This record gives sequence, structure tokens and C-alpha cells, in this order.
Amino acid sequence: MAKQKKTAITPTREADYPEWYQQVIKAADLAELSPVRGCMVVKPWGWGIWENMQRVLDGKFKETGHENAYFPLFIPMSYLEKEAEHVEGFAKECAVVTHHRLEPDPDGGLRPAGKLDEPLIVRPTSETIIGEMYARWVQSYRDLPILINQWANVVRWELRPRMFLRTAEFLWQEGHTAHATEAEAREETERMLHVYADFAENCMAMPVIRGEKTAAERFPGAVSTLTIEAMMQDRKALQSGTSHFLGQNFSKAQGIKFQNQTGDEEFAWTTSWGVSTRLIGALIMTHSDDDGLVLPPRLAPAHVVVLPIYRSDEERQNVLAYCEKLKKELEAQSYGGEPVRVRMDDRDLRGGEKNWQHIKKGVPLRAEVGPRDLENDSVFLARRDTGEKVGIPRNELLGTVGDILGEIQDGLFQRALELREQNTRTIDNLDEFREYFTPKNANKPEIHGGFALCYFVDEDPAVEAELKKLKVTARCIPMDQDGESGQCLFTGKPTTTRAVFAKAY
Amino acid sequence: MAKQKKTAITPTREADYPEWYQQVIKAADLAELSPVRGCMVVKPWGWGIWENMQRVLDGKFKETGHENAYFPLFIPMSYLEKEAEHVEGFAKECAVVTHHRLEPDPDGGLRPAGKLDEPLIVRPTSETIIGEMYARWVQSYRDLPILINQWANVVRWELRPRMFLRTAEFLWQEGHTAHATEAEAREETERMLHVYADFAENCMAMPVIRGEKTAAERFPGAVSTLTIEAMMQDRKALQSGTSHFLGQNFSKAQGIKFQNQTGDEEFAWTTSWGVSTRLIGALIMTHSDDDGLVLPPRLAPAHVVVLPIYRSDEERQNVLAYCEKLKKELEAQSYGGEPVRVRMDDRDLRGGEKNWQHIKKGVPLRAEVGPRDLENDSVFLARRDTGEKVGIPRNELLGTVGDILGEIQDGLFQRALELREQNTRTIDNLDEFREYFTPKNANKPEIHGGFALCYFVDEDPAVEAELKKLKVTARCIPMDQDGESGQCLFTGKPTTTRAVFAKAY
Repeated sequence: MAKQKKTAITPTREADYPEWYQQVIKAADLAELSPVRGCMVVKPWGWGIWENMQRVLDGKFKETGHENAYFPLFIPMSYLEKEAEHVEGFAKECAVVTHHRLEPDPDGGLRPAGKLDEPLIVRPTSETIIGEMYARWVQSYRDLPILINQWANVVRWELRPRMFLRTAEFLWQEGHTAHATEAEAREETERMLHVYADFAENCMAMPVIRGEKTAAERFPGAVSTLTIEAMMQDRKALQSGTSHFLGQNFSKAQGIKFQNQTGDEEFAWTTSWGVSTRLIGALIMTHSDDDGLVLPPRLAPAHVVVLPIYRSDEERQNVLAYCEKLKKELEAQSYGGEPVRVRMDDRDLRGGEKNWQHIKKGVPLRAEVGPRDLENDSVFLARRDTGEKVGIPRNELLGTVGDILGEIQDGLFQRALELREQNTRTIDNLDEFREYFTPKNANKPEIHGGFALCYFVDEDPAVEAELKKLKVTARCIPMDQDGESGQCLFTGKPTTTRAVFAKAY
Repeated sequence: MAKQKKTAITPTREADYPEWYQQVIKAADLAELSPVRGCMVVKPWGWGIWENMQRVLDGKFKETGHENAYFPLFIPMSYLEKEAEHVEGFAKECAVVTHHRLEPDPDGGLRPAGKLDEPLIVRPTSETIIGEMYARWVQSYRDLPILINQWANVVRWELRPRMFLRTAEFLWQEGHTAHATEAEAREETERMLHVYADFAENCMAMPVIRGEKTAAERFPGAVSTLTIEAMMQDRKALQSGTSHFLGQNFSKAQGIKFQNQTGDEEFAWTTSWGVSTRLIGALIMTHSDDDGLVLPPRLAPAHVVVLPIYRSDEERQNVLAYCEKLKKELEAQSYGGEPVRVRMDDRDLRGGEKNWQHIKKGVPLRAEVGPRDLENDSVFLARRDTGEKVGIPRNELLGTVGDILGEIQDGLFQRALELREQNTRTIDNLDEFREYFTPKNANKPEIHGGFALCYFVDEDPAVEAELKKLKVTARCIPMDQDGESGQCLFTGKPTTTRAVFAKAY
């Protein structure tokens, strides 16, 4: 039997994917569960990724004409009752504030006091409170469109949290817009989906399928929900961003109305769209390997870590001076329109241990510098994505570091795209569909097919039962269709559209 | 009687300062109170100021070695019980989450369900939850220092909210650090106070006094609290940022301990420091006038607004083209190390109305461009700070826009500094002190003295009663003292330090 290569992460992806995911987060020091049920602590390396995501997305939102604002954390309970489907979808698991004071408990400790007349809900999403404000702000067609985004924390009570993927509190952005016409609101809904898709593909190096959710998977209260869906390395789908056309559902429930150019009163057309810290989970599961995190350079908190190596105090002085200079020189280079981000790690740690920490953290490039490199004016460069290690003249590194980072970024995208293509099958037979999604081994439920593209007519609720049995969902009806026609896999009805089916997070 | 100049804000500062403040916020479209009791909505123009504050401060935090992270919104009730003074200070007015679900109420609507075993408190500040995490992270002196900052929302129940100054929910940053030695922690506490003071003076153009809080005004649980205090235009003080040396109080309560280099176990020394959206209130009250907001250029969301003026469609086309070009040219200039921020306002509004909107919003420079300006290749430039208006060749504007913005920034600082100097008095006589702080007119309680500098020995709690009667507080004991000595104004005890006394927000 061939000797197993030793990996930094135990278990490997193949041995136990869900546990591997937790261990990658731990090894990269991204986050940990807090003592507060369902809530996590995002540590500096994880937060650094989120800051980069925020910066890039925020720039794209502003380019597309949006401004940021901030709305209250709390929503009066009665607001959630206004839109019927919305209350059904969101009123169930949420944090309810009932008191506004603590007082000494005669039995020791503290107890809640000052009961509120109306309970407040910690926002699970802000359509209702933001809509209430829009109703005040909008009188005339001249007040439209309103194009606002908010970066905020939201809370949806979760009994089985998984870091980044599903936590009680999470961070996100939520765009909320109001328009004078249906066409304009639909256009906005699509525009923001494409912003998300571009971000996913170009920054996260994560290929996504753009499509529309089926009725069963729609946002509660939306007329239509657009989504980007990505394939993780266990071939499950992860919904990575959604953009909702809300029609006039919320504007009617909340009274967002305006006088149009001919003096008649109309209800506004609204949209909402969001991505969250869940994207960090998507990033981890798309690129990381059995040695830990792998980061696409566009989002890595550091592009290069410089690692000085020395044995004596004299060596130390010379090597450190060289490294400081190298760091500055690298920082003067640019990648993706931004300066190259460089850290130096001069901690008093064994070289091997230090090296492995940065491997596990997914730093795209490690530049080791020892006394011999000084003599040669060179650097020993290691790539996280391919594992390639090579001695390289300092000047060459400076001239090409941006290109190397670009190569890494592109390579990660290609690798992810190939995985998805290899694991996407067109299926026109129900038995094949069932077999595709049936785990091959009862002990490893994660081993099953990937994405299935099947003709689908979104009409018959009975189909949901069949899918539920297989633990499969219709992820979306892709915007790109080949124009051919066939019969719905489940109902036999004629159609020209295929949906993507998959097991999902 | 001289005719009163018409002002954009009613009432004027002199007529009713508190109401003037609310009206400036409204006229500048910065924020408004929400239907959620005590919570405000920060609108795009207000949020733009906060984004600029965040960007500058965040850069300073990172320069001084800090990283950002994120900790849970909720704190288990029992955590607040651990540090005795802290619970006294913070457990009183806070939002208490007692349930995690809503269910249909048989009487209609919804009702809370799923009672929690232990209530959760929406963080009023995060020392307790962050300390709990640090206790897990710190084992050895090698794990120290921990230098972390968090940008977050916090909630302190407020029955009498005032926008930006005192709201139930507010946005802030809270730095939390842990160190191996007392000296290092004290140094950190001072370092961050100076970061705040530099920010206040150089970015907000707001002069501040750096000092230490007296015992009565200290942060609950701190050994010492450093503060920056600014004078508003009504001569009241506004605490604008605090940095706390927490000694080992929190580390003992939470078990943040480490093995030192000789193998002994010690408790860490911790600090915390924060500034909040309150700074926007300080900014408004420092610079604004009876025509509305006045913004220091360093923090203005727009430095220049370009206002095209035309009467015919043909004029429109030419003027707009010229303005678009001017906007790009101005954006290519820089101020304070950043590109000049320019907006164009081409809305279909009367010129005068439009102009006044930007005056009320405090945009530092307005550049009007009409057909005659095109002929002369010039711009009609108006300064918000001085009201000065002047025709200026386009090329001259491009060459000097950064300098003009710098002049405005400096001028605002000087003006605020003069106000403070004119309204600061050294007082060594208790009757004079009482008279200084007694309102001159019962209908205008805001007309009283400004800052008083008095010898003070912070020992006798009875002094508090005297001060309370006058509605005066000791703001701080300034770091800068003149080295002379005298007797405490209240107790007669000899001392070499004066404190600053003032009415305060």
C-alpha cells in the first residue's frame, strides 16, 4: 500500500468533508464559536478577508449609484406582521427583546426588568423597517429611485450553527431600492445579481451559475429571487448571493407610494439584495486543500509573507535589513489596482512551524530569505496554490509579483470551474436522477453526484416531496439556456428551460 | 432697529441652541429619529461623514499595530455580573433578549416564544465578552500583547434620545488590548488618547483638551480614564473620546492570565478605548452656523459640488459637458493625501433652492458654471466657511483647490480654538465659580460661562454635591499643567493641578 502523504489538516476532505471544513477554519485562525450560543468570533485573519470583500463590493455598489446608510437594529414586532409571506418566513426564529433594564435579583445576580410595551425583534433582515422609512421619504416621482445599501449585523436564531455558513448573528450588506416603474426595479434586481456574479468570479475566483429561484426557494414576500450558485469541493451547491424583485408587495404593505408625473398615486416597486459572511465559507470550501486555507490573491489579507531565516545575531541583523527593504519594494508593486500587501513574520519560532502556519493560513506567496539569499540577491519563493518552490532573483520577483498573483488568481478559478464542469450532468431520466443523488456509501453521505441539469416546469408542489426524499433542491433556473426543448423530468410537461438540481448547504 | 439677516436655520444658535442643533441635522439631511424608540436612521450624507471618520481612524489604528476582529452582539447576563463596578455602570439600562421565537398569538398577531434559559444582553460595551475570549487565547507571555479593535453597534437604553449625542443604538469602535506589563498597558492607553486627539484636531478641526477623568467620571471598572474634551459653540463641553487603563480588574474577573518568562502565572493588564457616532454631533456643534452644517474638508463626503446653470437646451448641453470635464479635472487633484471629492448636481431644481441645499449640507466649496463662465473659461466659486464668492479662472481653481481646502480646514480649527480661548477662565474663588456657571437668564439656561480652570484635589465626594447643584462637572484634569501650585477651590487642600470644569453634554 502506498504511503499516505502527511497533510496539515486532519481529517482530509475525502475522509470527512464537514470536519475538514471546521479544521481549516481552526488551523487558519479565521474564527471560532463563542460561548454565546450560535454566535461566532471572527478573528483578525478572517476579518481581514471580510474587510477586503467589503471594500471591493462597496466600491461596486457606489459605482452603480448606491449610497450607504444605517437603519435601526430593532424592529417593532408589529412590523413583521404586515407582509403575510414575510412574517411566515422570518418571524419564526429570531431574537426577541422584551425588557430594557436589569435589576438585582433577590436570589442573587441580575434579572430582566422594565418590560417593553411592544417586544422588539433584532433584525433578521430589514425590509420592514427600511420600507417604513421609505414610505416617509417618498412623496413624488422626483424622490425616486432610492438606492441605498446598509452594512450591518443580523440575527436569525440557529440551533445548529456552522461557522460562516449558518450562525445566529452574521454580518452582511443589504441593498434596498425603490423605483417608479416595474421595469426599472427588475433591471436593478438583475444589475445587482451581475455585480455579485462578477465579484464571485473575479475576486473570489469562484465560478457561479446565475439564475432564478423556483417558487419554493424564493425569498418570503418576493415576486422573484435571482441567485448565484457555486459548487463546493464536495459537489454540494452553496447559494452565494441573492437579489430580490419584490414587486409592490412590500410597498403596499408599508405604504410606499408616490405621485407620478400625471398626478396619480402609485405604489413604488422595490428590490432588495444581499451577500453575507457566508461568502467566507464559500471561499474556504471552493479553494482550500488538505493543508489548509488557500486564498485567492484578490481577497487575501496578505499577498506575500516575508520570512527571515538566520542562526546568529549578526546574520539576524543583515537578513532583517534585507527583508525590510524587500517588504517596502514589494509594497511599491501593484496587483489588481492595489498595492501588493506584504507582511513580515519575524517571530521567534522554528522556521518549519512558522512556514506551516502561513501555509495553513493560505497566504498566496511565501518569500524566505536566509544569509545565502543575501549573497545571491535572491529570494526563495513558495506558491501556496501549486506548492511550487523556486529561487528567484530579487529584481525578477519585484518585476513579476503582480503577474504571479494574477496567475494564481486565474489558476484557482480554472481549477474550480473544471471541478464544476466535471461534476455537472444533463439528466433526462428520473431513475438516473435518483441514482445520481443517492449516496454511494451510507457512511459517507457526501459522496453523491454534483449538479444535475434537468428540464423542469415549476408548477407542481408534489415534486417538492420527491426532491425532499433525495435531499435535493432545485438551486435555480439558469439565465443561460441552450434554447432546446424537452419534457419536465417530474411532470412530463413540455418546456424549454432546465433547472440546476443539487444537494446544498 | 437693524434688520435681522435671514438665516436658513430657524431658530438661530442664539435663539435656541438645542433646537438649532436638531434643525441643522434635518436641513443637512444627516439623520432622523426612527419609529423605534431611541434609535435613529443615519441617512447617506450623515453616513458619508461616518465613513470618512472610520477610514481615517481605521488607518491610524492599523498604523499603531492593531487589527480588527468581530465579537458577538449578545452577552450572557451572567457575564455582566463578574466585574462589580462594571455591572453597576452598565447593567442598568440595556436591551434584554429573553426569547428566540415568535408564534401566532391566539388573540391575533404574534407573541414571543421559546424562552431562553439565560437572558442575553445586547452589548452596551464588550469588555466582558471580549475578555472571555482573551482568557481562552492567552496562555503565555508570547501570546501578548493582543491589540484588537472592533467596529460595531452597541445599545444603551435611552429614554431621552438626542440624535448622534445620545441614542439607544449607536455605532462605534472599541479597542481592547491585553499586555504583559502595567507600563505597556498604560503606554497603550495614552497612545490611543493621542490618536483620538490628533484625529479630532487635524481631521475634525476641533481643538480638544487631553486629560484624565476624575474618580466620579471614570469608566465603570477602570483604574483610570483618559479623555478628550471639546467646547461646543454654546460653551458646553462634549466628551469626544475615552481611553481606559483597566489595570487587572477585568483580567482578574475574567481569568486572563499568562505564564511569564520565569514561569510564574500573572494576570494580564488590559485597556479599552472608543469613539462613536457622537463625534458627528461634536462636529455639527463645533462648526455649523445659522445657515446649517459646516464641514471640515477632511471629513466632508464631497469637497466640491459643481452646479451647472443654463436656460436653454443648447446651453444645457454645453454647460454640462464643461462641468463633466471640470469634475474629472478636480478629481485628479488631491487634498490631504486623497483625491478631491467632487459631486455634480444636475437635478431639475431652481438654482437658488439647489444652492441653499448645498449650503445647508455644509459642502466646503460650490462651483457654479453658467454660459458666461464657459466663455471666460472660469468658475464662480463660493466658500461655505466664509461665505466668500469669487470668479476664478478654471486653471487657477485646479491649481489651488487643495490649498483652498487646506485653508478652510485650518480656518475652522482656528475659529473653534479662539472660541474656546475666549471662553476659558482661570478661577480661584468659589463665588466667582458659582456666578460663572449660573445662567444669566432663566429662560436661556444655555447662557453661562464656558470652561473654568480651577485647582482641584480629587478626594472629597462632598464636592460632587456642590457641582451637581450648579449642573457642572469636572471634565478632566488636563495633561498640560503650568507647574504652579495653589489650593483646591473646594477643599482648600494644596495642589499643583487644575481641573477643567464645565456644563456638559
